[in-house]
Amino acid sequence: MTRRGLLIVISGFSGSGKGTLVKKLTERYDSFALSISATTRSPRENEEHGVHYFFKSREEFEKMIAEGELIEYAEYQGNYYGTPKAYVEQMLDEGKDVILEIDVQGGEIIRNLFPDVVRIFVTAPSAKELKMRLLGRGTETAQKVKGRLIRAAEEMGYISDYEYLLVNDDLEEAASRLYDIVTVERMETRRQYQFVDNFKNELAQVLQDPIE
Amino acid sequence: MTRRGLLIVISGFSGSGKGTLVKKLTERYDSFALSISATTRSPRENEEHGVHYFFKSREEFEKMIAEGELIEYAEYQGNYYGTPKAYVEQMLDEGKDVILEIDVQGGEIIRNLFPDVVRIFVTAPSAKELKMRLLGRGTETAQKVKGRLIRAAEEMGYISDYEYLLVNDDLEEAASRLYDIVTVERMETRRQYQFVDNFKNELAQVLQDPIE
Repeated sequence: MTRRGLLIVISGFSGSGKGTLVKKLTERYDSFALSISATTRSPRENEEHGVHYFFKSREEFEKMIAEGELIEYAEYQGNYYGTPKAYVEQMLDEGKDVILEIDVQGGEIIRNLFPDVVRIFVTAPSAKELKMRLLGRGTETAQKVKGRLIRAAEEMGYISDYEYLLVNDDLEEAASRLYDIVTVERMETRRQYQFVDNFKNELAQVLQDPIE
Repeated sequence: MTRRGLLIVISGFSGSGKGTLVKKLTERYDSFALSISATTRSPRENEEHGVHYFFKSREEFEKMIAEGELIEYAEYQGNYYGTPKAYVEQMLDEGKDVILEIDVQGGEIIRNLFPDVVRIFVTAPSAKELKMRLLGRGTETAQKVKGRLIRAAEEMGYISDYEYLLVNDDLEEAASRLYDIVTVERMETRRQYQFVDNFKNELAQVLQDPIE
C-alpha cells in the first residue's frame, strides 16, 4: 500500500522567490508534485494544457464550481483561477507530496478543508532585499513595485497562520530546508497513529509469548 | 547576541537505543549539549562529577529541592535523581540545544514548565525488534526483559504527548533525523516572532522611502 502524500501549501511575498524554489524542489526530488490550477484565461505561448494549467472555458469553470470540483477558486482581472480537487487527490493517493502555490486567502480556505495540511510562508531575508529583488526583475514600474510592497505589508498579517516561515536566502539551501520540513512532519506523532497501533498490538503478542 | 538554544526532551523505551543515539548526536554536532543530572547515588568507576553526574549528598539534594533548583526530580531505589535548572539555563543561554534524556513522567513535568520544549519519543522499529535488543544485551534475565517490555506497554500511553516519534532503525540515520527535527523546529513561525517584527518595521521604512 502506498503511503498517502502530504498536502503542502506554499505562500509568500511577491519577490520571495517561491516560484523558483518550488520549481527547484520538484526538479530535485520526484516525490513532490505540483498542483495544476484550472483557469479561464488564455494560454500564453509555451503554456500547455495539463502541464502549466488546465485551460477551461468560463462555462466549464462555472460547472466545476457548481459541482464542488474545486478546492478553492478566485477571480482576478476577469479570469477565474482555481485548484481542481481530483488532480490533487490523485497525486496524494499516488504517494506524492503535493505542493499548492497559493495566496494567503487561498491558504486560509485550504486550512479549513484539510486540517492536515502543512503551510509554509516564504520570505526574502529582509524587506530591503525584497525591494531589491522586485526592482531587479527590471520589468516593473516603480509604481508596480510599490504596489507589491504594500501587498507584502498586508500579507504579513497572515504569517502567524503558517506553521513554518522559510527564509529564502540561498535557493539550494532553501530547497533542502523545504525538503527537511516534509521529512520532519512525517515524524510527527499525530501522523504515525498506524505505526503506534501496530506496535501496541505486536507488543501485546510479544508479552504473551515466553521470553527465551 | 547569541540565539538561545532549544530544550529537547528525549524519552523512549528501554532498548530503543536512545542513549547511544543521544551520544552519537552530541559527538557529531557540537551545537548540542547534554543535560547533566544530579544524584545522591555513589559514583561508579569512571564516572566524573560534572561530566556524568553532579554527585550530591542527600542533604545537598534536599536543599536543592527546597530552594527550587531542580526542574524535576524523582527517587529510585533509595536514591534521588534530578535535573539542575542552573546548568540547563546556562547551556541554553550559550545557544546550545540542550537534551534532557528523561522518562515519560519527567517529560510531562518539563512540558508544563517549558511550553517551548520539543519532545521526542524514540522507539525500535517493532516490538519484536525491541525484545531482541533487550535480550541481545545478554546481561539481563528473562524476568528483567519481561519487566522492561511491560514497562514499554505502559509507556505507550504517553507517546501521543510527544510531538515526534523517532523510529531508531539505523543509528546514523536516526541521529540525522534528530538533527533535522531541531533545524525544522527553528523554522516554526511561532519561534520567529523577532524576525517577523524586524521585517515588519523595515518594510514600513522601505515603503516611506521613494522607490527608484
